[in-house]
Amino acid sequence: MTNSNGNGNGPVLYAHRMGIDTYKQPIIFLRRDSQICRSEGFESMARIQVVSGTRTVIATLNTVGPEILEENRVGLSEFAWKLLEAREGDVLRLFHQDHLESLSYVRSKIFGHKFNEHQLQAVVRDIARGSYSDIHLSSFVTACSGGKLDTDEILSLTQAMITVGDKINWPSKMIVDKHCVGGLPGNRTTMIVVPIVAAFGLMIPKTSSRAITSPAGTADTMEVLSPVKLRLSQMRKVVEKEGGCIAWGGAADLSPADDILIRIERALNLDNEGQLVASVLSKKVSAGSTHVLIDMPIGPTAKIRGMHAAEFLRDHFMAVAHEIGLTIETVFSDGSKPVGRGIGPALEARDVLAVLQNEKDAPQDLRDRSLELAGKVLEFSPDVAKGTGLGIATEILDNGKAWTKFLAICEAQGGFFEPTIAKYKHVVTAPRKGKVLSIDNRRIATVAKLAGAPHAKAAGIDLHVNVDGFVEAKQPLYTIYSETPGELDYAIKAIRSEDYVMKVV
Amino acid sequence: MTNSNGNGNGPVLYAHRMGIDTYKQPIIFLRRDSQICRSEGFESMARIQVVSGTRTVIATLNTVGPEILEENRVGLSEFAWKLLEAREGDVLRLFHQDHLESLSYVRSKIFGHKFNEHQLQAVVRDIARGSYSDIHLSSFVTACSGGKLDTDEILSLTQAMITVGDKINWPSKMIVDKHCVGGLPGNRTTMIVVPIVAAFGLMIPKTSSRAITSPAGTADTMEVLSPVKLRLSQMRKVVEKEGGCIAWGGAADLSPADDILIRIERALNLDNEGQLVASVLSKKVSAGSTHVLIDMPIGPTAKIRGMHAAEFLRDHFMAVAHEIGLTIETVFSDGSKPVGRGIGPALEARDVLAVLQNEKDAPQDLRDRSLELAGKVLEFSPDVAKGTGLGIATEILDNGKAWTKFLAICEAQGGFFEPTIAKYKHVVTAPRKGKVLSIDNRRIATVAKLAGAPHAKAAGIDLHVNVDGFVEAKQPLYTIYSETPGELDYAIKAIRSEDYVMKVV
Repeated sequence: MTNSNGNGNGPVLYAHRMGIDTYKQPIIFLRRDSQICRSEGFESMARIQVVSGTRTVIATLNTVGPEILEENRVGLSEFAWKLLEAREGDVLRLFHQDHLESLSYVRSKIFGHKFNEHQLQAVVRDIARGSYSDIHLSSFVTACSGGKLDTDEILSLTQAMITVGDKINWPSKMIVDKHCVGGLPGNRTTMIVVPIVAAFGLMIPKTSSRAITSPAGTADTMEVLSPVKLRLSQMRKVVEKEGGCIAWGGAADLSPADDILIRIERALNLDNEGQLVASVLSKKVSAGSTHVLIDMPIGPTAKIRGMHAAEFLRDHFMAVAHEIGLTIETVFSDGSKPVGRGIGPALEARDVLAVLQNEKDAPQDLRDRSLELAGKVLEFSPDVAKGTGLGIATEILDNGKAWTKFLAICEAQGGFFEPTIAKYKHVVTAPRKGKVLSIDNRRIATVAKLAGAPHAKAAGIDLHVNVDGFVEAKQPLYTIYSETPGELDYAIKAIRSEDYVMKVV
Repeated sequence: MTNSNGNGNGPVLYAHRMGIDTYKQPIIFLRRDSQICRSEGFESMARIQVVSGTRTVIATLNTVGPEILEENRVGLSEFAWKLLEAREGDVLRLFHQDHLESLSYVRSKIFGHKFNEHQLQAVVRDIARGSYSDIHLSSFVTACSGGKLDTDEILSLTQAMITVGDKINWPSKMIVDKHCVGGLPGNRTTMIVVPIVAAFGLMIPKTSSRAITSPAGTADTMEVLSPVKLRLSQMRKVVEKEGGCIAWGGAADLSPADDILIRIERALNLDNEGQLVASVLSKKVSAGSTHVLIDMPIGPTAKIRGMHAAEFLRDHFMAVAHEIGLTIETVFSDGSKPVGRGIGPALEARDVLAVLQNEKDAPQDLRDRSLELAGKVLEFSPDVAKGTGLGIATEILDNGKAWTKFLAICEAQGGFFEPTIAKYKHVVTAPRKGKVLSIDNRRIATVAKLAGAPHAKAAGIDLHVNVDGFVEAKQPLYTIYSETPGELDYAIKAIRSEDYVMKVV
């Protein structure tokens, strides 16, 4: 056994699938009494390069006793197994991890130095390869958070993320897209904008993310109604047939580094501007977009809390987009209260269907916001005069063409399913007669997440009244839905006072 | 099964020792098809509170297939097993982790706000309890690095670290100590200072750390010669008998949060000033010290690179020490080149023995530095006039009393062992005739670590010449020692150019 530049002549080791799911962390297991651990000095938590044929993975070592592994085996976690495309008994070679030069760039950043383009390319490449442990990933995310990336660095990060991922080319010169800088429960406009725009005839191959810190992302919500894990080839077929799709970006491998970073951001409950801009714009370029509308809801408990933060973010979006040759428009929208009634994948999907099907009691706010955004996207087209987009979008929704297109997109993606309803529920009622003064977006998201959203699709919250609504004492304010009694109980427990989520005065 | 404030009435689960070593990360394993995973919505990487009798641990979940675990079992990693003091078949209860308020303080710090005392108490308490995952720990360490803690925060961090650990009381009003702010290969003065000071009659219960980012810490080096994993009660017996000890601080549980943070700092190769001050001073207070001498080697490739950084660090040491009622003195010393000849636990131990035994060719620099420091520590005593300490220390070393005391301390700690010599070696020779202009402390540490130090005790580097020495062409410059051929090969490979470690001109 030698280092990776030499020829291995130590013990022959064979792959064994341990069946242990460590999510997106490659872990390998070795017997602590094995010859390789003794001869190579491998200890638990060591970072080890694992080579199987032409594939290489950097994994963290857990040493084990004789009960669960034979001596000449390398146990692989599910993620390591997948990355190596291993089969039981494959011959594996193990090496000390080569020194990761890019970690010294992260250290330098922590000490206040700027990243240059070369450095961020190296960092992002190593992340995409899975060479960073959770400790390294968390340090990188933390070092970039709190406004610590300037415009140059955000541009370099964006370009690096574009470089490491695949890029799609479409058979159209204009590819439009829309993106919402989340933080607003229930704001599921994408699923209404895409069918309107596609029905008009623009090409809109939409890839969405899953929830990062919210109870539902568009991909989670769309998944209630139709498959979203589309490979690139499948996405292409859907878009070529219907002019649009609503797919999960992660399945297409468009931004492998970003998918790894999102897990860390979620655990830290951090979603920093620099990574936000780089993540959004790199995914747009990779997805082949040319014209992108960015919706930025602003409100005291939304992700963007005020005009100052909104303008800062918009300026960075504009500056970076300009450099990478993307046309973008930004819209500041009301982020002071939830949109629609449902919060959580299935409940939000139900609201989307009501709007698309022009139901009488469909949430008006969700309809209005979707039409405004769809109108602005349509105005990217040279055939649509400024100021006329909204009218065209409204017509396409009202005459049922949007709903027909949505169904066709679902069919092309693999079928349409009706949303399910959760088994367990708890109704919260008004403590007094009065007016709803405010709803805390962050707290409502916390309660919905504790109830099980987004992993439990039907879990979440259904609002029976929104801000400025009048209620009688004991009138239902909102219902918490959960798929298990434990989660329902946990969500209820989180409501610490009668005005924790909704303030009635 | 309910949350932690309710009564469990779900499936009964039994502890099972998996035999998997995940170092200081508590991990639990559950069958992904088990009732508890389905009913509680537990997914891989979830943070779960595990309760066994009166003991509680927050662990990360890895879900597993049916091959390696029965359905009604909770598999425990070695560290989780130890923290819970579990026995096979113990009944365990599992809960969703309670919201960790202290993580919001870390987030706030990342966004540029100052920690207050209450917040750092909460963070350190949660860390000491094992409630932070690697991702959270790394974020905290990163957020505090690069000079981001001010004096107030360092004081609060120090106090918090004192609060969570045990504290020792000694039967003497004056307890002296010395500490070196590492970064200088071979600078193993502690093992010479302690026996001199103890032989004089001052009480010096020394706890040292293992290497963080260096090839050897004092605890690693002392462990070559004598056991260092002493429990508090054992340390007390040694000190009461001999007036001093040289023990590993981690075994005494004096600073449980610091021991957890050190693993993260090592993985990130970060050793920030704030945590350095808090770590050193909290350990001194916990160890019962009243008077502490701090040695600060300064050099371009030492941990402290210049006078500015040294003064910054000294001022923080002084300010925090004053607030917590500790008397400290600081010494700036030459950190421009390695001390002694050996680098790595066994090779450094050999140098220490040569000095203690007054061997003719003992490294003069190690002897001089040790005597200077010992003299200053002796001057803490009201019986020793300023300026007379060095003479007294020299006499104690020269007349053999220090060596006798060292042997007595080793015997009291569990016996004295001779250092071993590594099996594999590689000699690096001078590329030309000339003078050694410089030695890169950081690179020499890297090569020694790749050779296996500190985990392989006999591994490391033996210098045959130091800075300013003259050499002939082909004359040996240094020898790399390793316990395995793989590590030797890896260390050799790291030497990228002929003047990578030592510059001969």
